Amino acid sequence: MPSSFGDNLKITIFGQSHSPAVGVSIDGLPAGLAICLDEIYAFLRRRMPGKNAYSTARREADVPEFLSGLADGITCGAPLTAIIRNTDTRPQDYEQLRDVPRPSHADFSAFAKYGTAHDIRGGGVFSGRMTAPLCIAGGICLQLLRREGIRVAGHITRIGDEHRRGFDPVKIGNDEFDILQNADFPVLDKEAGERMLAAIEAASLAGDSLGGIIECAAIGVPAGLGGPLFGGLDSRLAALLFSIPAVKGVEFGSGFSCAELRGSQNNDAFIIDEGSIKTRTNNHGGILGGITSGMPVIFRAAFKPTPSISRQQDSVSLSRRENVMLTVTGRHDPCIVPRAVPCIEAACAVALYDAFLGMKTMHNS
Amino acid sequence: MPSSFGDNLKITIFGQSHSPAVGVSIDGLPAGLAICLDEIYAFLRRRMPGKNAYSTARREADVPEFLSGLADGITCGAPLTAIIRNTDTRPQDYEQLRDVPRPSHADFSAFAKYGTAHDIRGGGVFSGRMTAPLCIAGGICLQLLRREGIRVAGHITRIGDEHRRGFDPVKIGNDEFDILQNADFPVLDKEAGERMLAAIEAASLAGDSLGGIIECAAIGVPAGLGGPLFGGLDSRLAALLFSIPAVKGVEFGSGFSCAELRGSQNNDAFIIDEGSIKTRTNNHGGILGGITSGMPVIFRAAFKPTPSISRQQDSVSLSRRENVMLTVTGRHDPCIVPRAVPCIEAACAVALYDAFLGMKTMHNS
Amino acid sequence: MPSSFGDNLKITIFGQSHSPAVGVSIDGLPAGLAICLDEIYAFLRRRMPGKNAYSTARREADVPEFLSGLADGITCGAPLTAIIRNTDTRPQDYEQLRDVPRPSHADFSAFAKYGTAHDIRGGGVFSGRMTAPLCIAGGICLQLLRREGIRVAGHITRIGDEHRRGFDPVKIGNDEFDILQNADFPVLDKEAGERMLAAIEAASLAGDSLGGIIECAAIGVPAGLGGPLFGGLDSRLAALLFSIPAVKGVEFGSGFSCAELRGSQNNDAFIIDEGSIKTRTNNHGGILGGITSGMPVIFRAAFKPTPSISRQQDSVSLSRRENVMLTVTGRHDPCIVPRAVPCIEAACAVALYDAFLGMKTMHNS
Amino acid sequence: MPSSFGDNLKITIFGQSHSPAVGVSIDGLPAGLAICLDEIYAFLRRRMPGKNAYSTARREADVPEFLSGLADGITCGAPLTAIIRNTDTRPQDYEQLRDVPRPSHADFSAFAKYGTAHDIRGGGVFSGRMTAPLCIAGGICLQLLRREGIRVAGHITRIGDEHRRGFDPVKIGNDEFDILQNADFPVLDKEAGERMLAAIEAASLAGDSLGGIIECAAIGVPAGLGGPLFGGLDSRLAALLFSIPAVKGVEFGSGFSCAELRGSQNNDAFIIDEGSIKTRTNNHGGILGGITSGMPVIFRAAFKPTPSISRQQDSVSLSRRENVMLTVTGRHDPCIVPRAVPCIEAACAVALYDAFLGMKTMHNS
Repeated sequence: MPSSFGDNLKITIFGQSHSPAVGVSIDGLPAGLAICLDEIYAFLRRRMPGKNAYSTARREADVPEFLSGLADGITCGAPLTAIIRNTDTRPQDYEQLRDVPRPSHADFSAFAKYGTAHDIRGGGVFSGRMTAPLCIAGGICLQLLRREGIRVAGHITRIGDEHRRGFDPVKIGNDEFDILQNADFPVLDKEAGERMLAAIEAASLAGDSLGGIIECAAIGVPAGLGGPLFGGLDSRLAALLFSIPAVKGVEFGSGFSCAELRGSQNNDAFIIDEGSIKTRTNNHGGILGGITSGMPVIFRAAFKPTPSISRQQDSVSLSRRENVMLTVTGRHDPCIVPRAVPCIEAACAVALYDAFLGMKTMHNS
Repeated sequence: MPSSFGDNLKITIFGQSHSPAVGVSIDGLPAGLAICLDEIYAFLRRRMPGKNAYSTARREADVPEFLSGLADGITCGAPLTAIIRNTDTRPQDYEQLRDVPRPSHADFSAFAKYGTAHDIRGGGVFSGRMTAPLCIAGGICLQLLRREGIRVAGHITRIGDEHRRGFDPVKIGNDEFDILQNADFPVLDKEAGERMLAAIEAASLAGDSLGGIIECAAIGVPAGLGGPLFGGLDSRLAALLFSIPAVKGVEFGSGFSCAELRGSQNNDAFIIDEGSIKTRTNNHGGILGGITSGMPVIFRAAFKPTPSISRQQDSVSLSRRENVMLTVTGRHDPCIVPRAVPCIEAACAVALYDAFLGMKTMHNS
Repeated sequence: MPSSFGDNLKITIFGQSHSPAVGVSIDGLPAGLAICLDEIYAFLRRRMPGKNAYSTARREADVPEFLSGLADGITCGAPLTAIIRNTDTRPQDYEQLRDVPRPSHADFSAFAKYGTAHDIRGGGVFSGRMTAPLCIAGGICLQLLRREGIRVAGHITRIGDEHRRGFDPVKIGNDEFDILQNADFPVLDKEAGERMLAAIEAASLAGDSLGGIIECAAIGVPAGLGGPLFGGLDSRLAALLFSIPAVKGVEFGSGFSCAELRGSQNNDAFIIDEGSIKTRTNNHGGILGGITSGMPVIFRAAFKPTPSISRQQDSVSLSRRENVMLTVTGRHDPCIVPRAVPCIEAACAVALYDAFLGMKTMHNS
Repeated sequence: MPSSFGDNLKITIFGQSHSPAVGVSIDGLPAGLAICLDEIYAFLRRRMPGKNAYSTARREADVPEFLSGLADGITCGAPLTAIIRNTDTRPQDYEQLRDVPRPSHADFSAFAKYGTAHDIRGGGVFSGRMTAPLCIAGGICLQLLRREGIRVAGHITRIGDEHRRGFDPVKIGNDEFDILQNADFPVLDKEAGERMLAAIEAASLAGDSLGGIIECAAIGVPAGLGGPLFGGLDSRLAALLFSIPAVKGVEFGSGFSCAELRGSQNNDAFIIDEGSIKTRTNNHGGILGGITSGMPVIFRAAFKPTPSISRQQDSVSLSRRENVMLTVTGRHDPCIVPRAVPCIEAACAVALYDAFLGMKTMHNS
């Protein structure tokens, strides 16, 4: 079903951009785990709109309400459910879109699937707003993973033409992670970050938008998480990532660049490093055969530029079957990449914790 | 579960490289459909090893036996199951790998998950051999899709340093598809193809291997297939693609390159074209919001170079916890990309037919 | 996962008796269907506590709030989610149960599974309260089925020693259904109903409780809904029924009594009746091989007496490992059977509508 | 999907009565478990046809071939798949049934679902033959459960009018189990068993058939297996039981008879028994709130008489829409209850082992 994900941890997401609320129900959390709500609130604030120049002016408290699954702040074994109210909605912004689909939005394809019944207000179920419940689930998984010694952090490696170095896939460590997770605009190279922000500002002033790339890593991951075939951690994680609006590409480890290499260049030799088994390089991105190798998990997701731009665009009238001009109004991020960083971390955490719970099931000990 | 995929059409894959057989069971095929077995045999031959210089010397008939789901060659509503016997197996090639994992193979991560119980012969369930049952499912879906006017074809756009143009995402048509589907080495540019073959030959002579990129498209796809969130056609298809061994990157439409663009460059304007609604460009790769737009579905998958190379490599002894040298013997493709083309087409066909069956369910008419 | 049910229509239930809310998310409803909320409210009132002598004094408005899935009262294709607030909760009633489990309640088995993390307040996720979200889903399915000409109704055939005739499985029709669905205490035989009410009253005065049997039927069901094996309508419906607290037995058609019969007595001859194919008798209860036959679907569910009784009972102290006496306080129905009738109807409607949507998928036309 | 069952252990069944083979694929078995094939063969022999007077003359070796999931007889983590060839098939017996459905068989309802594409030979996917792969899965689960101290055994309590005592739900033990599992015709009361056999013989001579009831118990089951809502062990097990052809009723513990009781009679008091927590009676059948209590799990399944009888019966011609007489030929058990005992045990074992694996996942320790 479209709204559910996961094998050992099943998350079910619901809501539309302008319905009374969006939310998530999480089945499979072990009982007896303390959940720190403040950490979740803090995590959600990182994807909150209205913080600064590069994000939409839509302002929402985005404070989740926990409806089930907890007793005195402890998981009780029943599905944990949380909702976020949609308070700052402006349905009138979307009326014209019923007839004239916005280029590179889901308006037209949703119409093809659901007909006029599609809830077009704010993009309905196709809105970036749907990543808020994903981030609730992610915020929970992040803290549970951390107790197992696993950390996840993402950063921006490209905005339009501005790009900069990614993680060192072998040496990546806690220090970098600490910095990134407190950053407003997470980049490894501060200067590059400023140029990226300037590029966003320039695109915004031009009534335009920009795409970018987020790189994300998980460290402290034990070997043995995931599985073969459709149970691969890469397979599961990619499924989650491509369900995030605007993601158009996903790669693990050396990714697309490995297509240019020979095996002798791309293969990661095993070595004994201080008594434990590691690989000298990490072109495999921490996943071999769908299962973690114990090396950092590393992947990248490419985001297309926000399709909502204030420039006039060509579109069509569905009712009159003729070409028309469209000017998209409303509030929109000129670049959603900065706000998408916690969403990518959330996806990574959900896929990892799902695999982590599966490890317990599969292993014979 | 690792072995099952799909929502409306559930495929369950089983087998290991050196178990008695590999196979697939497909639940959800409508009853009453004639299945042409010859077409499936022909499709499977395209991924068959031992055809030529760039593939492994392992020779197998790869003729599937259909155990259930058909009565007089017609689907009867019960799950369709087919198996392929593993006949040309050489278990002795793999004994040393129990202690010394091959770099960039799943030997080590599988050991971490399953311990010594892992069936290491031929890579077990992590073998490329597991794409044979996927291709049975794909071969069935391809013919059922074609009856609905939907065609799928892939081609090679890169082998190592050699790369060439992909599909024109707007104009792509049946003529190109006809050529590709009869080609031994499917490329759009014959000269580039010869250089790619030469590159494979050179790598092979050097005891090395090469990676590459496959681009795949589906044409004739109606708008409205797929769904939001985890039901997105891109999400589902990516999950399938990353379950194919050696795939390290997946992108749709303009993919990673859209990260460099502004919205005004990447957005695909809607236009009326001979009475029907199309987009002027196709940077979205035929999928918007997880749902097909009616434009060709286009995506690319990056393959790492075959990790099995005949050169000596660094590895470790799991039992003695020390560094050792490893020489991988056995039969291996210097480049699996050519044989992977039908696998990519199969994945695309399975995801599309799954979505196609879902369209009937979801639409209110 | 424990909280999800269904194949074509996936319902996910969440909440605990004393968590902020209980709710349901329904994925797979076709888009474009008008949902009458008043009908749902009316249906929920039938299971509402506090109506009369035989039900608990706990009073709750039980008015659901619809959070997603609707736009202007029409299904929009996104999952429909509704919650009901838990307002009239008295957590203090349950403190002693943490150490002394109530006989024939889930207190002890839940402790075995979840440890002390189990939300024991009101029985947590094991409460009869969890049938409220099932009834929301059922209330939606009932109105959608009715538009397809399918009706569902249940009635009480036994309370303790008092029992009365069930449906005529062949002749059952709309007139009886109309009467039952407006009845406070749905029985086919009014006098027997009065004796049943008297029996409940007597048990209540004795500080005791009573069990009973509900029979339920669906009419207007087309032949061809359901499937073989685990897809059988009886298999799916039984799974739903046994998830309702207190159900200890389920039978279809002639049920347990068919074990006493010969084939020549139990077999249902096919006949042509006014041009359509029917069976002369209906011992099969409208389901053959897991698939509807076009005859009325008929089944019965046995309910155990409410385990909460005001008489003193034997139990144990979990901490001290010794026998103790327990007096259960709080508000409880002396007989939950009357309030369970809409729950049974809801389960039937959910299973039927799930199968109904599946019919569209599976059939080749 | 109709062909798959289970949450932590997913079994997928395929085949038809007269297709080349029937089989099962089992995903989720922990790696590293030795599987004794001889035990499975012995278990399958218990449901094998052709053993004696009360079973069909159809003779099949029913020796499964294991295609995947094992390496040197040990589970390797990949799905375990086994098939049984259908060798003794006589398709010509079934030709007339395409037009004239057999009373109380699935012929008509399958036609309604699948049209003429349904594989009517031997009943296709609706055949009792489909319980053979269930018994393979069950045979595996039974031996894995036994290593955990859990045993499962069933016996016949009724054949037609002949019925006898069931298990003592509190005192049931290994001695009774040993006797039952080596019995040709498993009953607790030998004399009653002989009368049952005589009743079958009499029905057979009269060209008729008989139904019956099987009671099954599991002992050594730890408290804490199963879950709330749709994850209840009773819910899951009932779903499996009703997927076995001819099962028309299922009850747990005191079952339907509890509807006649007061709470003070039906409630099972907790007691300390030699230091451990038990219940004085076991009306709950070992399951409270869907979760095992540590007491024996006890349930009963009612089987209808074999619908295939040699007496002439009324039916209809589907093509001519008129009443006709039908004489069913072919080989059929006059009473399938004896051969169904291992099927019921298999269903119990599969549901229990699925829950057992889930315990590891859910419990926080």
